[in-house]
Amino acid sequence: MQDDAQKIRELIGAWQRATAAEDLPKVLDLMAGDAVFLLPGQPPMRGRDAFAAATRAALDRFRIESTSDIQELQVEGDWAWCWNHLKVMLTPKSTGAPIRRLGYTLTVFRRNPDGRWVLFRDATLLTVEISTSV
Amino acid sequence: MQDDAQKIRELIGAWQRATAAEDLPKVLDLMAGDAVFLLPGQPPMRGRDAFAAATRAALDRFRIESTSDIQELQVEGDWAWCWNHLKVMLTPKSTGAPIRRLGYTLTVFRRNPDGRWVLFRDATLLTVEISTSV
Repeated sequence: MQDDAQKIRELIGAWQRATAAEDLPKVLDLMAGDAVFLLPGQPPMRGRDAFAAATRAALDRFRIESTSDIQELQVEGDWAWCWNHLKVMLTPKSTGAPIRRLGYTLTVFRRNPDGRWVLFRDATLLTVEISTSV
Repeated sequence: MQDDAQKIRELIGAWQRATAAEDLPKVLDLMAGDAVFLLPGQPPMRGRDAFAAATRAALDRFRIESTSDIQELQVEGDWAWCWNHLKVMLTPKSTGAPIRRLGYTLTVFRRNPDGRWVLFRDATLLTVEISTSV
């Protein structure tokens, strides 16, 4: 169980490093093909292809660096869930000031039949940084 | 497992009926004492007392009716998670038009040592109803 928790922590770290490195294939490898992302004020983003298109569009415009502070991580059988606090820095590739967002995510991970953990369901509640709001 | 899934479906229904009936003690009985609610643009709402205060303030102003359409529900051991679509109608008790909100929740449930399931972690992504957004 501890070992699985460590694998999931490594997955989260690998996701952030791959995003910062603009290694989209690596990010896509860390999620289930049918992953779903729940976002405020938007329809759910369903599946790897939709995520890839949105991320590609974001990476065309921004460098994306983030740090996470895992609040809780629970593994049970082939499922796990994690409550995380994220700080995200979006740096425009053209002009403009960096945009900082921060907030929480609640994420479900699944262990694939091959033993690898992948992100399965994710609810993201990031907001523009306001010191009083978090 | 099926039986547990049914118990959690009943918990969700009981939560909605108790909220509509303004039976706050009943709602509080359905959550862990240290439950956490993640909301867009707000700090996490931590614990039963904070939830009670916020809900009491909301029920002073509104009748709150909701329906849910469970998208997925997974039970594993003493943990479960659920992805849900909610429609919420807030009807002002004084004047004003009803407010409709809809959107998704991702929720973690825990089985207490006494065998009862309770809500443990909840990420809510409700928005004002816009026909194109969900």
